[in-house]
Amino acid sequence: MNRPSKFTGILTLSAVFAFAALLAATSARADEGMWTYDHPPLKQLAERYGFKPDQAWFDHLRLSSPSMGASASFVSADGLILTNHHVTLGFVQRLSSPEHNYVRDGFYAKTQAEELPIPGASVSVIMSIQDVTDKVNAAVKPGATPAQAQEQRDKVVAALEAECLKSTGLQGDVVSLFGGSKMALYRHKEYTDVRLVFTPELAAAFFGGDDDNFCYPRYDLDMSFVRVYENGRPVKVEHYLATNPKGASDGDLVFVSGNPGRTERLLTVAMLDYQRELVFPAMLDRLKARRALLKQYGAQGPEQARRARTYLYFLENSIKSREGEFRGLNDPALMKRKLAEETALRAAVAKDPALAPYGKAWTDLEKAQAWARVHDKDRQFKMGLGERSLMGTALTLVRYAQEVTKPDTDRLPGFHEADLSDRLRMLKSPGPVYKDLEIVNLTDELKFVVAGLGAEDPYVKTLLAGKTPEALVKETVDGTRLDDVTFRRDLLKGESQAILKSQDPMILLALRAEPTLRQTRRLFRENVDAVETAGLTQVAKAGFAVYGDGVYPDATGTLRLAFGKVAGYPFATTLVPPFTTFYGLYDRAYGFGQKGDFAIPPRAAARRDQLDLSTPLNLVCTADITGGNSGSPLVDKEGRLVGLVFDGNMESHPNTFVYDETQARCVAVDIRGILESLRKLYDAGPLAEEIVMGHQ
Amino acid sequence: MNRPSKFTGILTLSAVFAFAALLAATSARADEGMWTYDHPPLKQLAERYGFKPDQAWFDHLRLSSPSMGASASFVSADGLILTNHHVTLGFVQRLSSPEHNYVRDGFYAKTQAEELPIPGASVSVIMSIQDVTDKVNAAVKPGATPAQAQEQRDKVVAALEAECLKSTGLQGDVVSLFGGSKMALYRHKEYTDVRLVFTPELAAAFFGGDDDNFCYPRYDLDMSFVRVYENGRPVKVEHYLATNPKGASDGDLVFVSGNPGRTERLLTVAMLDYQRELVFPAMLDRLKARRALLKQYGAQGPEQARRARTYLYFLENSIKSREGEFRGLNDPALMKRKLAEETALRAAVAKDPALAPYGKAWTDLEKAQAWARVHDKDRQFKMGLGERSLMGTALTLVRYAQEVTKPDTDRLPGFHEADLSDRLRMLKSPGPVYKDLEIVNLTDELKFVVAGLGAEDPYVKTLLAGKTPEALVKETVDGTRLDDVTFRRDLLKGESQAILKSQDPMILLALRAEPTLRQTRRLFRENVDAVETAGLTQVAKAGFAVYGDGVYPDATGTLRLAFGKVAGYPFATTLVPPFTTFYGLYDRAYGFGQKGDFAIPPRAAARRDQLDLSTPLNLVCTADITGGNSGSPLVDKEGRLVGLVFDGNMESHPNTFVYDETQARCVAVDIRGILESLRKLYDAGPLAEEIVMGHQ
Repeated sequence: MNRPSKFTGILTLSAVFAFAALLAATSARADEGMWTYDHPPLKQLAERYGFKPDQAWFDHLRLSSPSMGASASFVSADGLILTNHHVTLGFVQRLSSPEHNYVRDGFYAKTQAEELPIPGASVSVIMSIQDVTDKVNAAVKPGATPAQAQEQRDKVVAALEAECLKSTGLQGDVVSLFGGSKMALYRHKEYTDVRLVFTPELAAAFFGGDDDNFCYPRYDLDMSFVRVYENGRPVKVEHYLATNPKGASDGDLVFVSGNPGRTERLLTVAMLDYQRELVFPAMLDRLKARRALLKQYGAQGPEQARRARTYLYFLENSIKSREGEFRGLNDPALMKRKLAEETALRAAVAKDPALAPYGKAWTDLEKAQAWARVHDKDRQFKMGLGERSLMGTALTLVRYAQEVTKPDTDRLPGFHEADLSDRLRMLKSPGPVYKDLEIVNLTDELKFVVAGLGAEDPYVKTLLAGKTPEALVKETVDGTRLDDVTFRRDLLKGESQAILKSQDPMILLALRAEPTLRQTRRLFRENVDAVETAGLTQVAKAGFAVYGDGVYPDATGTLRLAFGKVAGYPFATTLVPPFTTFYGLYDRAYGFGQKGDFAIPPRAAARRDQLDLSTPLNLVCTADITGGNSGSPLVDKEGRLVGLVFDGNMESHPNTFVYDETQARCVAVDIRGILESLRKLYDAGPLAEEIVMGHQ
Repeated sequence: MNRPSKFTGILTLSAVFAFAALLAATSARADEGMWTYDHPPLKQLAERYGFKPDQAWFDHLRLSSPSMGASASFVSADGLILTNHHVTLGFVQRLSSPEHNYVRDGFYAKTQAEELPIPGASVSVIMSIQDVTDKVNAAVKPGATPAQAQEQRDKVVAALEAECLKSTGLQGDVVSLFGGSKMALYRHKEYTDVRLVFTPELAAAFFGGDDDNFCYPRYDLDMSFVRVYENGRPVKVEHYLATNPKGASDGDLVFVSGNPGRTERLLTVAMLDYQRELVFPAMLDRLKARRALLKQYGAQGPEQARRARTYLYFLENSIKSREGEFRGLNDPALMKRKLAEETALRAAVAKDPALAPYGKAWTDLEKAQAWARVHDKDRQFKMGLGERSLMGTALTLVRYAQEVTKPDTDRLPGFHEADLSDRLRMLKSPGPVYKDLEIVNLTDELKFVVAGLGAEDPYVKTLLAGKTPEALVKETVDGTRLDDVTFRRDLLKGESQAILKSQDPMILLALRAEPTLRQTRRLFRENVDAVETAGLTQVAKAGFAVYGDGVYPDATGTLRLAFGKVAGYPFATTLVPPFTTFYGLYDRAYGFGQKGDFAIPPRAAARRDQLDLSTPLNLVCTADITGGNSGSPLVDKEGRLVGLVFDGNMESHPNTFVYDETQARCVAVDIRGILESLRKLYDAGPLAEEIVMGHQ
């Protein structure tokens, strides 16, 4: 299952940019690319599939593809949205309580009145895209250093976004593509009244658990329905996907419209080496330590297990996903291919005097890597604190207080006017906080920092203020009131000083941490991120110059269109089928004696005889996807819904760095499995009819 | 699926010996070993499973485990035998015709009268085992060279076997174990009236075809029943397996009793290097070329496809199996482990003056490998001709004629008195011969020899006698009468000279080929095989001296007992279940849209609703098996039948060289799947009742 891009937090690489991906010479034979809607793969679709959609086809699909952190689609005129169970899982967990365990039992609102408002959820739709490359470039003064150029760009971007909100009422987002060589202003319409309509029980949505996660053949009903409201009534949307209840067939051309979070296909070999040697080993160690901790916590009792479930789930998900990528980085064939591509491009650049200036990019990038290697401890221990905890909330409040008083264009990324509504909504939303779990997490994090830097490190001394991590965390968590939404709202109502002068112990800890974190982040922005942006822009431009313009940018969390065909694949000396069916769910369950996550979900056990077991349940296709695509609709040539993307198989993870379709597959719930289960397992026939008819 | 040892023919390594396998230090934790019945793994069973069977337990299982080329078991007092569909496939093919396609349609004799006699089939049971090590060793004169010692051993072995037949009426087989350091006389009772009782249609026995072969999860009914007759009536046997209709559970201790064909766990690193660098690449190329040829032939029409089916099946089977082994040879972890074991043993030998003489073994073996490398072309092109064809028949006749006039002890291996009945029975049995297919195969083989040695090679010139391969083969195959069983029987009735003076063109070609083949084989016996036997005997003895006596010998096609537990395994980031069910058959079929070998077998399609789909169909366990174990019974601690071994998964093939149970598994049909299908798919309830009741 793909990690929604919202949850990339601590796990992402130090530098998250928009990098361009160059089409290799072989790409004309591959279903490669996460294309922007303003430059769709017309040529590839025509050449490979003889398919020539018009502009209206693309517009309809784009407007039917809202984002809700990860991906989703409108599936009825009455604002009904289909996405993954695991995309809504965090929300469902927040709506749950020991009395109403919707994660364990599922939820279905038989009437509109029963639909459950989801605190903090929002949905946005891209209304238009405007090229602002020239405007952004014009702001960069001749002779600026990379760091200066970055700052000048940041300012104009903030101004453009603010202007968008002011003049259109739409959320503006300037998106940097191809390593910054193209900039586009995306205008979003935001909906913030989002209500839960249907979610299945975890046992059906996540059958096979972490073992089967990222694997295929798969048998999961990883789906949820929410509905968007405005003024207390379901939103009427013009663009929503029709349903093809017959589904897709083996070999059919299909499309995925969604928000892939991150690919790194432009990274140079030196950058990949850095990832393999330093970033991934430390990251995987950290994730696994955190997983062990959460398991230990969850083992104390059923309520602790319930509390730990969501975070544990994302940890396990991240570990498997990152291990898949790490395998790619350690794959000699993949690295050889990257090196060959890089060598070819550098040779072409060196040969052509007009391109020669680009040659410097690779040496600049190597220098940035060298700097990062020297400062690797800072990256590991002084970049952040408080992942998924009240400490994170405290740091956000402190930064908000420090930034909001500055002119918009001078603020830290993420604190411009245009970014604030999203941030403030989360801060002002209620949600359960478990102080015992907070203590476990924060103690672990502080001990990790102490172990990494040593007790004599000035940052450590400042943080601990003479106490042990255990004692400090206990008094901080016990004493803080940040778990109270009213307290947070009150803090945000006051002047910036209300936060900065607060005596809440968690805020005080954040204030001690922030100068070092801010300093480290600044140094990495200047010495690594800015150099990489500049260098990769040059690499991308060199690529344009040598290979021409038919390329797509790296994934950056913005809306993209991928295409491919329904297809099984060769694996471990046999073949993997393009489809699975309900039969396989029972086979796998009985094969394991129904142990653990392989138990037949209760409804499937009780209602087996009502199901047509040969109904396709999951399917795979070659479309180029990655984390963040979770919840994307899978549509056919007529733009009709034939499936719901929820995963990439393990073999797709190295595609972060190089696309290969031999075994890499996008995994989706088949529309036929969705309809069959709504009707026969969940007594949710009216919901099935709503998506088939296109309205309530 | 495992290749029955009968069919190893051209495919085996140049030197087929009995090598000893040394238990590594870790083996106490592993379900390792193919144990002889006179030295069963009592210690391992007691320590690992707390199980202490008595001698009667072993005797009963041994006497219930007849051989029919591959493995089998008695499953009723009325001589009923259970083995694999693929073990009987060659026989079923011989019984089939365009009018009665039992391969395609299956066969069931509802009454005894309908049971179909199988020409050329035989079944043998080991009645007793006697240690003859001293007798054999006494025959080797002091100071004999390896080649002389080999010859002296061959003579005494032939004498012992002849004496056994004469004095007991039982077939005698002197089995060389632990690289010749132990010799045992196995006395067999032979049955030659074997009749086909039941075999399912190929589509059910081999669902998933070559793709799923050697893979798991699997959904195959790879089973056949035959019955042994004497004097026109079913044989009454005292020892047969009771059935446990409830089957085995996950984790249960189970046993496999059968005839594993070949393991090479004693090979030195130098010998493995030779296999990896020279033997396997050439062998795989050759097998693949032959497969392509057969496919081309089969593509001409349905009758050609039917004719090519069995051989093609065994080719595909061999290719996958050998590729699995080759993967092992190319696995750095496996080779590292072998090297570490060898280094440790050599160091122990070097350290102890009493063991120092063994040290020479490794250098001797390296020299034999060096000789073999120099003569590799001879091994490839001058060791054999006429695999699975009339040319092979002609060569056997010629050799028989040349050897039979010599004293028994002077004959070539395989032509001693004790070997002859088996050989002659095949020669005298009817069976279809397709001359067009003979032409295709022999032309290909001659062209392969010409291409390998060049047109000017004396052997090539002798073979071709001035003709093109095409012309020579055409006139030879057109002109031969060896396809006529009466002609063969007449030839064998006459004096040896009748064969040697025959003007049959195929015999004439064999007579031209034989001197070179004989010479090459002799040189390899002397310079490689004999040195390897001697060297590996020393290595085995060194192992005994250093590690003690609790070891099992390499597989050599004789009856062995393996043990293990029912267990799934981790694979490709998820888990593989211990059992599959009928559900999975339908899932996989529908998942592939029922294409090709994934079509639901017609009976399973028609009678789905009568099946309990959750019935276990196949299962896996950790027992140590290899090719030749096909057809072995899987029994529980009470010695009751719980399954029918038919395959090792792909991960088990490197076990030829080193046992590892992380992923390697023995694959069996579950007894519950056998009973359910007999009763509900095949209207063969009486057969199911016979094995449950233990008699007709």
